[in-house]
Amino acid sequence: MVLLIKNGTVVTATDKYSADIWCEGETITRIGQSLDAPPGATVIDAKGRYVFPGFIDPHVHIYLPFMGTYSKDTYETASKAALVGGTTTLIEMICPSRTDEPLAAFEMWKGKAEGKSACDFTFHMGVTRYDASAESQLREIVKAGLSSFKIFLAYKGAFGVDDTELYHTLKLAKQLGVITTAHCENAEIVAELQKQLLADGKTGPEWHEPSRPEAVEVEGVHHLMTFAQMHDAHVYIVHTSCEPAARQAILARQRGVKVWIETLIQYLVLDNTFAERPNFEGSKFVMSPPLRHKRNQDYLWNGLASGLISTLATDHAPFDFKGQKEMGRGDFTKIPNGIPSLEDRVNVLFSRGVKAGRVDINRFVDCLSTQAAKLFGLWPRKGTIAVGSDADLVVYDPTAKSTISAKTHHMNLDYSAFEGMEVEGKPTHVFVRGAAAVKDGAFVGDLRRGKFLMREPNHF
Amino acid sequence: MVLLIKNGTVVTATDKYSADIWCEGETITRIGQSLDAPPGATVIDAKGRYVFPGFIDPHVHIYLPFMGTYSKDTYETASKAALVGGTTTLIEMICPSRTDEPLAAFEMWKGKAEGKSACDFTFHMGVTRYDASAESQLREIVKAGLSSFKIFLAYKGAFGVDDTELYHTLKLAKQLGVITTAHCENAEIVAELQKQLLADGKTGPEWHEPSRPEAVEVEGVHHLMTFAQMHDAHVYIVHTSCEPAARQAILARQRGVKVWIETLIQYLVLDNTFAERPNFEGSKFVMSPPLRHKRNQDYLWNGLASGLISTLATDHAPFDFKGQKEMGRGDFTKIPNGIPSLEDRVNVLFSRGVKAGRVDINRFVDCLSTQAAKLFGLWPRKGTIAVGSDADLVVYDPTAKSTISAKTHHMNLDYSAFEGMEVEGKPTHVFVRGAAAVKDGAFVGDLRRGKFLMREPNHF
Amino acid sequence: MVLLIKNGTVVTATDKYSADIWCEGETITRIGQSLDAPPGATVIDAKGRYVFPGFIDPHVHIYLPFMGTYSKDTYETASKAALVGGTTTLIEMICPSRTDEPLAAFEMWKGKAEGKSACDFTFHMGVTRYDASAESQLREIVKAGLSSFKIFLAYKGAFGVDDTELYHTLKLAKQLGVITTAHCENAEIVAELQKQLLADGKTGPEWHEPSRPEAVEVEGVHHLMTFAQMHDAHVYIVHTSCEPAARQAILARQRGVKVWIETLIQYLVLDNTFAERPNFEGSKFVMSPPLRHKRNQDYLWNGLASGLISTLATDHAPFDFKGQKEMGRGDFTKIPNGIPSLEDRVNVLFSRGVKAGRVDINRFVDCLSTQAAKLFGLWPRKGTIAVGSDADLVVYDPTAKSTISAKTHHMNLDYSAFEGMEVEGKPTHVFVRGAAAVKDGAFVGDLRRGKFLMREPNHF
Amino acid sequence: MVLLIKNGTVVTATDKYSADIWCEGETITRIGQSLDAPPGATVIDAKGRYVFPGFIDPHVHIYLPFMGTYSKDTYETASKAALVGGTTTLIEMICPSRTDEPLAAFEMWKGKAEGKSACDFTFHMGVTRYDASAESQLREIVKAGLSSFKIFLAYKGAFGVDDTELYHTLKLAKQLGVITTAHCENAEIVAELQKQLLADGKTGPEWHEPSRPEAVEVEGVHHLMTFAQMHDAHVYIVHTSCEPAARQAILARQRGVKVWIETLIQYLVLDNTFAERPNFEGSKFVMSPPLRHKRNQDYLWNGLASGLISTLATDHAPFDFKGQKEMGRGDFTKIPNGIPSLEDRVNVLFSRGVKAGRVDINRFVDCLSTQAAKLFGLWPRKGTIAVGSDADLVVYDPTAKSTISAKTHHMNLDYSAFEGMEVEGKPTHVFVRGAAAVKDGAFVGDLRRGKFLMREPNHF
Repeated sequence: MVLLIKNGTVVTATDKYSADIWCEGETITRIGQSLDAPPGATVIDAKGRYVFPGFIDPHVHIYLPFMGTYSKDTYETASKAALVGGTTTLIEMICPSRTDEPLAAFEMWKGKAEGKSACDFTFHMGVTRYDASAESQLREIVKAGLSSFKIFLAYKGAFGVDDTELYHTLKLAKQLGVITTAHCENAEIVAELQKQLLADGKTGPEWHEPSRPEAVEVEGVHHLMTFAQMHDAHVYIVHTSCEPAARQAILARQRGVKVWIETLIQYLVLDNTFAERPNFEGSKFVMSPPLRHKRNQDYLWNGLASGLISTLATDHAPFDFKGQKEMGRGDFTKIPNGIPSLEDRVNVLFSRGVKAGRVDINRFVDCLSTQAAKLFGLWPRKGTIAVGSDADLVVYDPTAKSTISAKTHHMNLDYSAFEGMEVEGKPTHVFVRGAAAVKDGAFVGDLRRGKFLMREPNHF
Repeated sequence: MVLLIKNGTVVTATDKYSADIWCEGETITRIGQSLDAPPGATVIDAKGRYVFPGFIDPHVHIYLPFMGTYSKDTYETASKAALVGGTTTLIEMICPSRTDEPLAAFEMWKGKAEGKSACDFTFHMGVTRYDASAESQLREIVKAGLSSFKIFLAYKGAFGVDDTELYHTLKLAKQLGVITTAHCENAEIVAELQKQLLADGKTGPEWHEPSRPEAVEVEGVHHLMTFAQMHDAHVYIVHTSCEPAARQAILARQRGVKVWIETLIQYLVLDNTFAERPNFEGSKFVMSPPLRHKRNQDYLWNGLASGLISTLATDHAPFDFKGQKEMGRGDFTKIPNGIPSLEDRVNVLFSRGVKAGRVDINRFVDCLSTQAAKLFGLWPRKGTIAVGSDADLVVYDPTAKSTISAKTHHMNLDYSAFEGMEVEGKPTHVFVRGAAAVKDGAFVGDLRRGKFLMREPNHF
Repeated sequence: MVLLIKNGTVVTATDKYSADIWCEGETITRIGQSLDAPPGATVIDAKGRYVFPGFIDPHVHIYLPFMGTYSKDTYETASKAALVGGTTTLIEMICPSRTDEPLAAFEMWKGKAEGKSACDFTFHMGVTRYDASAESQLREIVKAGLSSFKIFLAYKGAFGVDDTELYHTLKLAKQLGVITTAHCENAEIVAELQKQLLADGKTGPEWHEPSRPEAVEVEGVHHLMTFAQMHDAHVYIVHTSCEPAARQAILARQRGVKVWIETLIQYLVLDNTFAERPNFEGSKFVMSPPLRHKRNQDYLWNGLASGLISTLATDHAPFDFKGQKEMGRGDFTKIPNGIPSLEDRVNVLFSRGVKAGRVDINRFVDCLSTQAAKLFGLWPRKGTIAVGSDADLVVYDPTAKSTISAKTHHMNLDYSAFEGMEVEGKPTHVFVRGAAAVKDGAFVGDLRRGKFLMREPNHF
Repeated sequence: MVLLIKNGTVVTATDKYSADIWCEGETITRIGQSLDAPPGATVIDAKGRYVFPGFIDPHVHIYLPFMGTYSKDTYETASKAALVGGTTTLIEMICPSRTDEPLAAFEMWKGKAEGKSACDFTFHMGVTRYDASAESQLREIVKAGLSSFKIFLAYKGAFGVDDTELYHTLKLAKQLGVITTAHCENAEIVAELQKQLLADGKTGPEWHEPSRPEAVEVEGVHHLMTFAQMHDAHVYIVHTSCEPAARQAILARQRGVKVWIETLIQYLVLDNTFAERPNFEGSKFVMSPPLRHKRNQDYLWNGLASGLISTLATDHAPFDFKGQKEMGRGDFTKIPNGIPSLEDRVNVLFSRGVKAGRVDINRFVDCLSTQAAKLFGLWPRKGTIAVGSDADLVVYDPTAKSTISAKTHHMNLDYSAFEGMEVEGKPTHVFVRGAAAVKDGAFVGDLRRGKFLMREPNHF
């Protein structure tokens, strides 16, 4: 079966050109001018549209027991939302508690996805305990196809590792060629500031940011940099929220630390004043690290545009306002964390970044897809449009206008952090390995087609 | 006429895949698996080899009156050397003296190249004087197809501009969408240190480096950054030789300055001890900024690998040891500056960078070709392998071994800075716009085929 | 004749203790507990008061032809104002134009002071041209008792030196053991920004700050640091107005540059919004570098408290609002620069610094007196209370309250930048070399007693 | 009883002048020119000599159970050595283990000193556990006269605190007005690197430095800075050994952290190559943080000279080569840490610092005495020569030459780290509160006269 996408403007992290894309089965096999459709081919006319490689969200949570509740999406709802938004691959975090066994957690998380996803997926393996047994299971898991770890410097006692564990996790990662992604905040300071604020009667969502100030994130980054340097380990800082944290990482990069930086679409367009909204609406804007002062945004945009910051993700973690966020009324530390953006990431960046002249179209593809594919061992299968790559393709109309709203989005969530935001640009067709998942903007995919993506270690 | 390159591993700044490349006339029109050769096609079997986009050297001097003599290469010799070394596009500097008229200089420099080059070429327009007449000529020149300026903070009195001129050059550049490349050294300190060293009897080539210490280059960079910031002008620092200078630029980038960094292959593999070689042999290693202490090399390699440094060039400027470099016996300030590397850049980086595991194969292409194409308005014509791009292609054998020597090189020069260096990797075939210029490692090109490349301003 | 100051709390840059101070003639000869007054002694009971060493203002202009007019004070008015405010020594700038002869300027400026001042004085020698003749005159002037130079990176064409002159000035300074004070702003950028703003119709005093933005000052500092490093010359940055400029100097200090930083009382308590006051009142707050955004003040206070910033001066330069500042109506570049503070510096720092808990009492003395005395070769004669030092003493009532006003101040000026500011703390008695100049807050001095202070080079 | 020191050159942190010093009982009561000796006075002619305030060593260990052995000095031997070397006040660390009770430890340590010391003394209170009981005892101890804490980020499990304890210690310190001194090294990295090195058969003393590399110290400093910032707590970094660690602290100071830096005489004149000496002699040079690469020394000297570094101490901790250091043969982690310098600090700094022109005579006094007195609440009793201060005085002959040797030193130790070093400058007479302790260089003190110095909190 041939899929032929004609007359589009093909854009990769490097290139932009007019051509037709010819796919056989799940794979791109030919790119050229004026390719003639063979009999029986599916032909899409992409005239006036972009053709992008499928986007990758390298930081999402689907199955997430957190603070006594569960995030709302399943792979059914999440993969649908992802695809409608142009994202064809998810990298979820496996987050076992300290007492869970890593292998069992891996199986469990995989089980939540397999056969239930319309898009492809893989996982970062959360390392939330490090001992001989954990180590041997981690080795198994890497052999089984996960080539990235996730550690938390925050959430000590729950997911967080101590410094000895951190040391050994990075040592193992280096030995195996695995990259380690890290949540960088000092756990103890956060815990103490939370106590202090609550004791002072500061209980609303607007106190979430002061309970994890920028310095606490900078401390986490500096700490990780030192440990990474000890092993020449490859590390990736998730959800970098502010200028000083990014600056620390770039200083480390300049002394030879192999570090990459992720930021989130939320930090680029929302800020700490959102969490100050009345009637507990601020709770919709609670995540960690928190939304920061607006002054950081220029730095983050600039970092994204210049490549100092590698990737743009979402840390998708959906909790309803009703019933879930509300658990934290009277105690902001009980507000489930997350500002869901899985469906909106691509369009918001296109609108506020590309259209606004802040990020060029190649960096747009790079930070939303290619960098993640390369860092996490998905490339060249994913992350690009090239002969031999998976036919994960997004036909994108740069002129389509729409308004983001919880009423219309596909995420299983009763609010949108971007409610009412007008955006330009929208996927019209999305293909996963050659098969249509979105047609004229509507989901037409198969909820069982998504595959677990085996990944090889690639950080040596 | 069809050119078909089969079975190679195609590498761009982003991609790496197995495919056949089909070119019609001067252009790549199709890339695919198992393309069948049409009758009459030229077919190259690239099995086991890389296919790279033609490399671009964004910083060369061919016609260069300097210190009372002339650099040795002509376009005939230089383009041949370039092509044998895999470089298919040259960007030369037009360096009028302060009293020359810009338009006349442009015509003169262009005249030295047109009809005499086997490879394509374009120019950075040296701005060595700024007044109303110069401004109006610069506007003409930009319309005529040059979209980059070159300024010297060094060489005051000769090429150098003063601060008022610098201010207005960058203002004009911003207005026209032109990028400004800059030689960053404080002219006055160099002049004074030279006098002082000579007065102290320090006359040998080993005193060249102390006459332009790192701090003088850092000063130049900081100075440029301030002026660029005033206009939000786009600037490009040529031949960055040391860590502190690069660090200044990266600090500026973080406060929003649009700055890119070039380093040279010489700085990566040679150091200031080479200029200390006895019997005046040190003079072969005199250029400005000078070769630095070895401690800078890790930083530069790391910067190149991580993309903090954008491009790798040569500042090619060939002066014979006999008769030319020797003019500076007894007075290092009279040694013509230059460490010619045009022919060797690609192979040395492949050998010391890619093979040594310091730079990955995509960054190799990126820093040698794609970045220069993008920064200087040559992309997507040049700098990539994509449908619609010029068929500038390098078939590269990664296993070929050779030894660099003046006896065998094609540059018109009686010495090689890399004499005796063993390298791995070598172009076997090179095509310029579809036509063979190198076959089995030997030049087979047409010395009149090279075209002047018109460029549009692209920095707004 | 004995002067005995009893029961005060003596404070120096290091010490604070209760004791009596015994002076014979012009000199402190004994400090002790319960000293008995000899017959005929003048006895002051300083119970409940501080006894400070006479304060030194190391950066004032008295005779100042500037922008076609003259600053208002003479030594008669200025020395009176200084003494009432606790300042017993002035260091004025000699500012010849480029065409003036240094020796003649020295004589002229000295002539304006000698026999007309109630307090002691000396001068920084402005180096506004450097050639063989200037050099030989500078050597004479250093022998004649001036051991500090002043250079301007700003005001090119008027007072400013070019880079070659800067190089040689610092070289000479190093050779002679002289410290060089420097006004650090890039002249050319300021000139161009001024033109541009005026051309855009931005003519009011509020445009003065944007015409010399922080980056322009930082550039000046970085530039000076590079030149100082070349000679290991000792340099002193006058009127540092903002955090980034100070940070540059502190980075340089850490790589070994011998640099000290001065800030002004104005920058600590006033900010750029003052220059935006309507009805041209903003012109009262025009000086260079300009008053900055408030966000810099914490840094400056902290730098002063911790000693990162050495001295607090005024850059006193009084121009009346009526008739003088008004020359710049319709063209802010014509507003004579200066925010006179000579009389208020000590009291404002005491009130806003010491009383507010921002600066301790020893640093108060240090930054207002001791550091200047040491840096400029006046110590131990001036700058401390010690046996053998000049009996320059300030008896200070920390509880006295007053309101600053042009109606009551002694400066020859029709406005006060601190009009209406309430301050705590005030000199009650001031002695210059043992003789009373202020008694119960009122001037009782002798307008001819002030001496020219010969200084020896002390920076080797 | 009157002590009169005549004709000396009195030097404090600020002053230098010729005068006679008159002491009554334990106190300086008068300073003046040509004071006449009363009947019965002890008169010392200090002509040609300096008179310094007694020096303070703010970081010594006398009673120190460590690694299964005890440091060699008692107060008898240590106070004698201190005094002969010009040090009149010791601040020792109380280092209880985690299971010890703070109050009991305080009593115990005080008991080791009281009635057994020839010089005055006080203690930093080691906080090695933080819980409700510890907190209440710490409050008692502060009331009992200790106004400084000591914490270890290193030595986790032994003395080290975890992050929650660190948070609360600094919170309490801030509340009480107490300064916290801190040993900054990441404990876990050191522990892991030690294991790894030993496992690799790297067991000699030369491996001590690589087991605690500079980055580990920098990490400790950055960590402390973050926690201090949370509370606006006042902190003091003990034994800063290298440039990057000091730079971190100075960056923090610039963002408002109240931090002071101590370095040690050892780091200024010894380096890591000493620990590489054959025949296990390297063990004599094992301490933590370790002696570093020589390249750090210029920075430290410069920091000391410019005041960026506040104090110079010794971390005195004497363990014999025979029998004690030797416990670590075959396992460098078992070498008792310490490079004893108590007796030599003053003379080595005078010789290598003042005589060599690296540190001026006022900074010499400041960093050896005044800064410690002020930071630790001993001033104005100690740390200066002023009316009302204790008559702790050192008459110092700047021309005396001697050679340091274990054969002649007074420390109870079988080796000297400075063996054979020739120094210029030596105390001839030392007085403790008016009483002679050293006469003509020989100890004449009273081993029971030293007093415990009560200190008031002074950091608010």
